[in-house]
Formats: sequence, C-alpha cells, structure tokens
Amino acid sequence: MNGSVKESSSTKYRLIYFDVRGRGEIPRLLFHAAKVDFTDDRVDSEEKWYNSLKAKMPQKVLPVLEVDGKQLSQSLTICRYLAREFGLCGKTNWEQAQVEQVVDTMDDLRAEVAKWIYEKDTVKKDEIASNLRSEIYPKFFGILETILRENEENNNRSGYFVGDHLTLADLSVFETFTFPLSIHPDIFDDHLELQEHRQRIMTDKHLAEYIKNRPERPV
Amino acid sequence: MNGSVKESSSTKYRLIYFDVRGRGEIPRLLFHAAKVDFTDDRVDSEEKWYNSLKAKMPQKVLPVLEVDGKQLSQSLTICRYLAREFGLCGKTNWEQAQVEQVVDTMDDLRAEVAKWIYEKDTVKKDEIASNLRSEIYPKFFGILETILRENEENNNRSGYFVGDHLTLADLSVFETFTFPLSIHPDIFDDHLELQEHRQRIMTDKHLAEYIKNRPERPV
Repeated sequence: MNGSVKESSSTKYRLIYFDVRGRGEIPRLLFHAAKVDFTDDRVDSEEKWYNSLKAKMPQKVLPVLEVDGKQLSQSLTICRYLAREFGLCGKTNWEQAQVEQVVDTMDDLRAEVAKWIYEKDTVKKDEIASNLRSEIYPKFFGILETILRENEENNNRSGYFVGDHLTLADLSVFETFTFPLSIHPDIFDDHLELQEHRQRIMTDKHLAEYIKNRPERPV
Repeated sequence: MNGSVKESSSTKYRLIYFDVRGRGEIPRLLFHAAKVDFTDDRVDSEEKWYNSLKAKMPQKVLPVLEVDGKQLSQSLTICRYLAREFGLCGKTNWEQAQVEQVVDTMDDLRAEVAKWIYEKDTVKKDEIASNLRSEIYPKFFGILETILRENEENNNRSGYFVGDHLTLADLSVFETFTFPLSIHPDIFDDHLELQEHRQRIMTDKHLAEYIKNRPERPV
C-alpha cells in the first residue's frame, strides 16, 4: 500500500459498466482481491444506456469509475489507478512498469481475439481462429512464460508475474484468457505454468468465492 | 519527483526504435523535457532489424527501453515509467490517473488515424479522411477541451492538461496531433485553446530546440 496517496477507507467507489465481463471485469477483480467495497453498477438495459446514462459519461463510453463522485474514464487507466490505490501494482517504479508491461501485452492479445468476436463472415472467422491457434496464442504464451520464469528465478518461485505477491498483472492475464479458453478449451494443455497460474488466481482466498459465483456471461 | 523510486542520476538509458516519430517520439520528448541524457538508438536499416536486433527484443517489436541494460517493452508502459521517474506524471495517484486517462484517450485517436495510414484503397482512404474530419476529430476535441477547461478552473489557468505544470499528458496530446495536422493542417482553426496548448509545448524552454531541430519524418 502506498499510504501517501491512498484514498481514505470511507471512499465511495462506483464502477459503471455493462452486464458483461468485458472491460469491466479486471476492475471488479481488483476490488475483490483488495476486499474493498464498491457499487457494481451493471447497465443491463439499452434504453437506460442510450436515453439517460450515455450523455452523462465523459467520453460517452463505459466503463467509468466514480471515486466519491469524481469520474474516471479509460478502462486500463481505471485498472492502474485502483491497483496503485490497493497496493497491487508493484513496490517500486520498475516493478510497476513490469506490471503495466504485462497489462499492455494482454491488451494486445485482447485486440487479436476481438477480431474473431466481431467478424461476421464464417470463412474469415475460421481463418482468424486458425491464426489465433497457430500464431497468436503461441506468441503470447512465449512472452508470458518468459516473464513468469524470470520472476520465479528472482523471487523464490512466487508463482506470480511480478514480485512476490498478486498484482494487476496476474488479474489481467487471468481475465484476458477467460474468453479464449471458452472457445478453445485446450490451449493451455501444454502450458503447465499458465495452468498453475490460473489455478492460483481461481483459488485465491479473496477471489475464489467471487469467481465461482459471479454472473456467467459469454464475454 | 518521487525520490523513493527515482533511478540514480548515473542511470544509463537507451531507447531503441526505428528512425521515425511513431511510438518512440513521446519517450524522446520525455527525456528532453526532463533534460535527462539518453541514447536515441534509431534503427534505420531493415537488415540490422531483421538479421540481428529483432531476436534480442523481448516481444520482437520496438520500442524497447533499456535501463542500465534491463529491457522494458510496450510503448505506453515506457512512457509512464519515464514520466513517473522524471516527475512528469502528476503529484497524487488521482492526478496520475488524470494524466493516464489523456494518454489512453490519445492512443484511441492514434488507432483511428492509423486506419487512414494503412488503408491502400484510395476510395476507402477518402472515406476515412472524411470521417476523421466530421466525426473523429470533433469527438476528441470535445473531450480534450473539457479536460483542459476543468483543469484551468482548478489550477489558475495553467494551460496544461493536468495540474499546474507540463506532464506526459501534454506531450501525448502534442505528439498525437503532429501527424493529423500534417495531413489536415486546418483542424485546429476553430480550437484556440488547443492551438495555444500546442504553442506552449513548442516554445517550452526544454523542448523548443529539440522540436525545431529533430529529424523530419512523415510519421
């Protein structure tokens, strides 16, 4: 925890997002990992979004985080803000950069997977899926496994991506693979370290109950 | 400056990027704004990149920042790391989030402009240009002008995006509009505050000489 910048414990947090995981789920996981109360405001009606809420949002998109009523846009900015606030973003500036490097890398993967989600032509969709399996996933597996192994060498096999405890980096990897694993369940088969890492998050004492009971959504 | 995490003044920085502005220019501007020495390693030969350098880069892409030999990937991670190191990323966690919100917003604009850059079909390219002018630029102008005005109200008309001095947010806005202004020179015509902000960066005592004399590149 960084005492000098941490909001007081009476801070009122409200996360406004649609009723899917999408770009709202990593912030939700951060709140649960840190055991910090927040209002999980899930907008589940198009009418509510288009007719009343959208115009009040600074960039006319979600997620938006409200901190004592002050609004913050941009999902990754929200993730990093909360992670710093909750002591889940590394202990030094360099560790923080290591965390952010993983998060930005997972955002690159998300963009690749989004091509599959938004493609309507079934032939092209199959081509994208094939490319994900043969090129994209292996590339990201290689990057992540290298980072995980280097950190394990430096930190007594903590099993986390940065330093010796859970950070935003771990939550980002966990969440970003949730959708790919739902369409390609076997992709971790030859990647024991990534399997073990995923299991570590799913059984985390602060996260296990939330992950088990959270609303099931396709994305 | 955050004394507890700042690298010592003998830190050796090397920024490896291609010989264009691209995703390397905001880091370069940060070094100049902070008056910190760095090696501006501009890879200007495809042979050097493909035959020797690429394999040594953690994610096989550039930019990469080396800090005393340790490598950091992901351009926005590099920007934020340097900005924190140099005291150009806000004074509190909330100010840092304000800075990052602007940076992520400018990355959204960059992605929109990239569609024009990479489109080869001339008819489609014209359509994208038309959409940039009628929809995209105005949307981002609105977001930026709102942030600039709110900060001016809170900070005695500093003229910067966050707080009372130059931050990464200002450099991000400045650099991200350099290319759009080169293809659409009139877009700031009705946006006096953005003109003035741009002028403020171009005449900054630490930046003016670099910006005036830096290599001219199309992107």
